[in-house]
Amino acid sequence: MKVLLVGASGTIGSIIKEDLQDSAEIITAGRHDADITVDITSEESIRDMFEKVGQVDALINTAGAAHFGPLNEMTPADNRISIESKLLGQINLILLGKDYITDNGSITLTTGVLMDDPIVTAASAAMANGGVRAFIKTAALELPRGIRLNHVSPTMLEASKDQYGDLFQGFEAATSERIALAYRKSVFSGQSGQGFYVY
Amino acid sequence: MKVLLVGASGTIGSIIKEDLQDSAEIITAGRHDADITVDITSEESIRDMFEKVGQVDALINTAGAAHFGPLNEMTPADNRISIESKLLGQINLILLGKDYITDNGSITLTTGVLMDDPIVTAASAAMANGGVRAFIKTAALELPRGIRLNHVSPTMLEASKDQYGDLFQGFEAATSERIALAYRKSVFSGQSGQGFYVY
Repeated sequence: MKVLLVGASGTIGSIIKEDLQDSAEIITAGRHDADITVDITSEESIRDMFEKVGQVDALINTAGAAHFGPLNEMTPADNRISIESKLLGQINLILLGKDYITDNGSITLTTGVLMDDPIVTAASAAMANGGVRAFIKTAALELPRGIRLNHVSPTMLEASKDQYGDLFQGFEAATSERIALAYRKSVFSGQSGQGFYVY
Repeated sequence: MKVLLVGASGTIGSIIKEDLQDSAEIITAGRHDADITVDITSEESIRDMFEKVGQVDALINTAGAAHFGPLNEMTPADNRISIESKLLGQINLILLGKDYITDNGSITLTTGVLMDDPIVTAASAAMANGGVRAFIKTAALELPRGIRLNHVSPTMLEASKDQYGDLFQGFEAATSERIALAYRKSVFSGQSGQGFYVY
């Protein structure tokens, strides 16, 4: 099995890479430290990546930036950061990448707990997550050749507690093992149109 | 009570207008046939509208376009139609309009059943609905001066059955009375951060 892992050098990407390396051939992609350089906010960069990589059995994306900040200070331009990256970056991986997925292969994107369990300053990030979830639920019905499409929605990771603990007050952190299981389920279970919630 | 009703000449807007006209002073807004002309895909147009109208006790929006079409033919540009109108048009009404809402006033936006009950060709519309819902859930926590923020999520309307019945196969249509009740609840109930689901 050939897996294209976008966002491979991030916290979640690293967890997935370690977990899947015995089960699959992994091609890493990301803005840096990866086999293939890609910026998911650019359609051209996404197209270039798939042309270089060719067919894969599974595409997993953990990349995507979002704006965090108080609502009273948020401008439409701030909010566009989440639109272009975490929302459209991920959706464009489906639209531009589906022809590169093998029959009965899978696409797994990453949402997050903030769409279900809100915290102040995170409206824009929550929007991106909620948009990706709703797109997937429909798009999974239409993908050709048995291609499956899911998302994993992680809560704060134990591995990110030092970095994000102040923001995620009162959230129970998820172990790397639980995060890895969710992505593994998306790739291997045969399910489609689902969200795997690690919380 | 002063209500700014954006999308007033549409099917849902007309229902709300008729229902609220005895309870409130209604200022209508929309691309045509309205007291104030506004295009919610333009930040400048939204700013102009609020400058003209000034303070209101309730803002209700039913405007917003979305792309419908087969996933296999959907381009990133097609998907942007929903991003700019149904998603960002509505969110920008919050970001640019909140200072024009009186203390303890309310903002009510419109999502839709497709984010919960998917049908082929509607991934982009579902995305917009899901993004608005998730944004609202967080943003409601942060609005100042007791301002409330909700969305109404209608299914297909009986009044739109001739136009959309072929698309919404198997959906039970909602009466105009039930639609009006949901918007009325959002404005008068005191609830915030909620979705009122008419299905």
